Amino acid sequence: MNTIDQSIAALRAQMSQAKLDAYIIPSSDPHQSEYPAEHWNTRSWVSGFTGSAGLAIVTQDHAGVWTDSRYFLQAEEQLADSEFELHKQLIPHAPEHIDWLCQQLSKGQRVGCDGLLFSLGQINRLGKALDAKGIELDYQHDLIPAVWADRPALPKTPIFEHALHYTGQSRQDKLALIQQKIQAQGATACLLTTLDDIAWTFNLRGSDVECNPVFVAYAIVGANKVQLFMDQEKIPAPLQTQLEQEGIEILPYRAITAILDTLKAPHRLLVDKDTVSISLYDLIDEEVVLSGPNVPRQLKAIKNDTEVGHIKAAMLKDGVALTRLYRWLDQALEEDGITEVDVSQKLDQLRRAQGDYHGESFSAIVGYNGNGAIVHYRPTPGSCATLRKEGILLLDSGGQYTNGTTDITRTTALGEPTEEQRRNFTLVLKGHIALARLRFPKGTRGIQMDTLARQPLWEHMLNYGHGTGHGVGFFLNVHEPPQGFAASISQRGTTPFEEGMFTSNEPGFYKTGEYGIRIENLVLTRTAGSNEFGTFLEFETLTLFPIDLRLIDVTLLSPEEKNWLNSYHAEVNRQLAPLLDEEEKAWMADQCRAI
Amino acid sequence: MNTIDQSIAALRAQMSQAKLDAYIIPSSDPHQSEYPAEHWNTRSWVSGFTGSAGLAIVTQDHAGVWTDSRYFLQAEEQLADSEFELHKQLIPHAPEHIDWLCQQLSKGQRVGCDGLLFSLGQINRLGKALDAKGIELDYQHDLIPAVWADRPALPKTPIFEHALHYTGQSRQDKLALIQQKIQAQGATACLLTTLDDIAWTFNLRGSDVECNPVFVAYAIVGANKVQLFMDQEKIPAPLQTQLEQEGIEILPYRAITAILDTLKAPHRLLVDKDTVSISLYDLIDEEVVLSGPNVPRQLKAIKNDTEVGHIKAAMLKDGVALTRLYRWLDQALEEDGITEVDVSQKLDQLRRAQGDYHGESFSAIVGYNGNGAIVHYRPTPGSCATLRKEGILLLDSGGQYTNGTTDITRTTALGEPTEEQRRNFTLVLKGHIALARLRFPKGTRGIQMDTLARQPLWEHMLNYGHGTGHGVGFFLNVHEPPQGFAASISQRGTTPFEEGMFTSNEPGFYKTGEYGIRIENLVLTRTAGSNEFGTFLEFETLTLFPIDLRLIDVTLLSPEEKNWLNSYHAEVNRQLAPLLDEEEKAWMADQCRAI
Repeated sequence: MNTIDQSIAALRAQMSQAKLDAYIIPSSDPHQSEYPAEHWNTRSWVSGFTGSAGLAIVTQDHAGVWTDSRYFLQAEEQLADSEFELHKQLIPHAPEHIDWLCQQLSKGQRVGCDGLLFSLGQINRLGKALDAKGIELDYQHDLIPAVWADRPALPKTPIFEHALHYTGQSRQDKLALIQQKIQAQGATACLLTTLDDIAWTFNLRGSDVECNPVFVAYAIVGANKVQLFMDQEKIPAPLQTQLEQEGIEILPYRAITAILDTLKAPHRLLVDKDTVSISLYDLIDEEVVLSGPNVPRQLKAIKNDTEVGHIKAAMLKDGVALTRLYRWLDQALEEDGITEVDVSQKLDQLRRAQGDYHGESFSAIVGYNGNGAIVHYRPTPGSCATLRKEGILLLDSGGQYTNGTTDITRTTALGEPTEEQRRNFTLVLKGHIALARLRFPKGTRGIQMDTLARQPLWEHMLNYGHGTGHGVGFFLNVHEPPQGFAASISQRGTTPFEEGMFTSNEPGFYKTGEYGIRIENLVLTRTAGSNEFGTFLEFETLTLFPIDLRLIDVTLLSPEEKNWLNSYHAEVNRQLAPLLDEEEKAWMADQCRAI
Repeated sequence: MNTIDQSIAALRAQMSQAKLDAYIIPSSDPHQSEYPAEHWNTRSWVSGFTGSAGLAIVTQDHAGVWTDSRYFLQAEEQLADSEFELHKQLIPHAPEHIDWLCQQLSKGQRVGCDGLLFSLGQINRLGKALDAKGIELDYQHDLIPAVWADRPALPKTPIFEHALHYTGQSRQDKLALIQQKIQAQGATACLLTTLDDIAWTFNLRGSDVECNPVFVAYAIVGANKVQLFMDQEKIPAPLQTQLEQEGIEILPYRAITAILDTLKAPHRLLVDKDTVSISLYDLIDEEVVLSGPNVPRQLKAIKNDTEVGHIKAAMLKDGVALTRLYRWLDQALEEDGITEVDVSQKLDQLRRAQGDYHGESFSAIVGYNGNGAIVHYRPTPGSCATLRKEGILLLDSGGQYTNGTTDITRTTALGEPTEEQRRNFTLVLKGHIALARLRFPKGTRGIQMDTLARQPLWEHMLNYGHGTGHGVGFFLNVHEPPQGFAASISQRGTTPFEEGMFTSNEPGFYKTGEYGIRIENLVLTRTAGSNEFGTFLEFETLTLFPIDLRLIDVTLLSPEEKNWLNSYHAEVNRQLAPLLDEEEKAWMADQCRAI
């Protein structure tokens, strides 16, 4: 029996003891993080499937993983040798596993999970569906400690301050603004459980989660009292003194439960039901809860001028690093044995050389030919592909710089592309340009704009199985809610765009087993103008790196699309050239030549 | 005191007696109809504002009407001489009046309305918002009978059968299909309260509502029993015999309340919470209710091949009638004194001459110059505009034929259009063509497609304040839920499109006081093809009438857009020419000339 099947067996023994017929293991942590610290990476550990989105369910006679089309190929490979079977979700993040549970279990059977890992809304939806079939839900079972022997401990890495010079807004000012917003809603305090919102609010950063500069904590921001719940050992002494001088109370991480349990009226605690865990929510007196939006999440989505200035500087760093990477790659392809992992490591080094670098903002996706069609492919040493002077390379990567978080995808031809590849690349480019050029009324939602990026592909009955864009943090999480471009009635799809929002524009196309195409830039929302029809917004593309001209079929571009591309390339060249040496300059000028 | 202010005074007296501080008068009837029978046209009667969407609230010191931007100009004019004030809704159909009530009233005050006119969902939202402010909601007050002296009676017009030859599906087959769908959901019967769904289910039509061939009724479709609640006098004797032979029980209209009140478990009644009135819902035992979608609404949205064949024939009738109208108009403009109402009446006559005509599908909008900018303008004799050989005429009209419901808008130049008018018309046309040409994956929602129709206007920071399209009935309501093209998270915006759906494509542009532009065709959703990326759908434009070439700036059209227009015009000419006389043929050939 392999280790995965051993884990399943151990979990089933625990389930029997707890009289549970099914156990649900989500991808999340108590903070509803997209990328949890290793300590909570339970679904990956139990199933072997390491994709960022997915959920496992174990019953006495079945072990299943649910994930969406971005991860089908990866999951099929990673689950091949264990009892786990892949359940393909038609719609990303849709609760299709709930239907499965309702079909598989019968009246009187029991489903268990750890309520600390589920939001109130998730448990409500699950409980309602199960209840209709007479199936019981018991969410107070954390069976993992008993079965995960070598589980990583909670992280102990120190936190550090993100200086005012970068953030443009002091901790005190942010706290005062949050206090003002919560009072306006009739609350006395708000509960913060999401790690990026806590990091933003306190102008603090950490290294608890790979690629996300956050730290494990809770916070309560009240009118007269601000409490931060975290491992005190992780705070350097001078910073602790500073925080205490500002009146911020530091309490142990797990003290949040006792505090929530004792809050009584007239306290009114603003709680974001979409992100608070059911286990924490259950502790709060019903009269104390005031349901409302996550205040820092709304505030931090709007980047201020200081942040935007730094982001633009970070884009220069990324542009120079990528220039050096592709020039190195041109040379390296002449030799033998360059792998996808080599590309990823080289790019990490080149970004580091740019300074103020805190590592990748996510594990770089270096997808050569067929690997490029695995949307969230992550090359691993030993098994990854070796590059040759042919085919197509998809490279999706980003850096965490003190002055900004980047995320860029370029697809490049390593040899002579086929006509079909050029057509499909050009269709993806047309979609990218449609969003990049768009003007739209204030209040327009991502679901309304997402279509413009897909329409050129749709015309040829092609499509891609992921959203077209996500919010991006400022030296924070590369996937930052709430806004984005998505084809679904989700928070990402339905959040109205506002000036200052910072979002990725990344349509793609994937031909299974052959190649993947994606073109991703980050765009800032800014005001285009106002008239009797309202205020109109538009996007400013901040990412600076050429789009591979060899992959473009110019005959498919309209004059407006050609103008956009030529202007973009002129701007890329204008901004990057001063930072490059003479040979690099010549290379860049050629990459950016007008078409 | 004018009659409106007298009505307000009478209503206030009734409110005082009932101890109500505010009274809400919606635009609806007990069936949640968009266009109610005159008997229920209470909001129009009380306020004088006759637009199809809007709501009135009367307090002891304020009388207000809430409506959206389509009706701002109309409402301003119609409310000018009374105490009623216009509240401009930012978002159509949004409950902005609820915020107003919460701000204006204080704790302990009481809001009243007639629960028969509100859906369960509407009352829940209203009650929840008021409750948060300590304001009481009492929805069991129908104050109107006491204040509306000359109120029209319930209609007595006879119903008639819509023959199988037209519907393509017998009453028995429809009932059997509904019975199958409700059993699959675990229900024993379903409650039907929406008039068009009842008319469709029973293959019956009536004349109770102007322009909508429906009749006032309720129905309960059960596994073994089918009950139709309506005024028996309205059923011709042979039809009544036929219905009874088919086992359909006819009960008095108001008997619905007694029947609902006595239903007990194990009966399970499928109820559409979005459309049932709170007053009926309250009567049903909690254990009997099973909440679920309106089954006939889903079924009737998909037009069958027989219906589509008839719709195509109705389009020919409309095309011929419009040809004769515009040719008559060309002549009539040479004389003096042709008014908007003349155009409307002439078109009605020309449609009637085509046969099988049951009147307009809505009051024709004939908007000359500035009147065209009033989106739902309805010309009235005496006050309407006189047409001259200059400016722009917007004509939005439709017919109810036994073989289909039509809805078409054309905007035509009566003289030499300005450069600005041609540019804006062409931008609207580009949006219209973008939808008409669109291919999209099955499951795509209207909110995702609506953007394509607006994008050319957005580029110039222009927009229009209405949805881009609505479902259309088959010899039924011209506005037929659920699907449509809309920029909102509404049923219309979020319903996935399916093969067989029949929808309007009608972007527009309105320059207040100067002119209105709208180009509307009806489109049928059909399958384009399937591949590894899923099933793709597309639209077939069924409306047949040329688009005014004089208003097009050809330099703004892409080659693909020109191709679409030329193909469309070739098809219009090919289909209509055989039905026209020689002079008309020549006129049509010129209108449809390639550009």
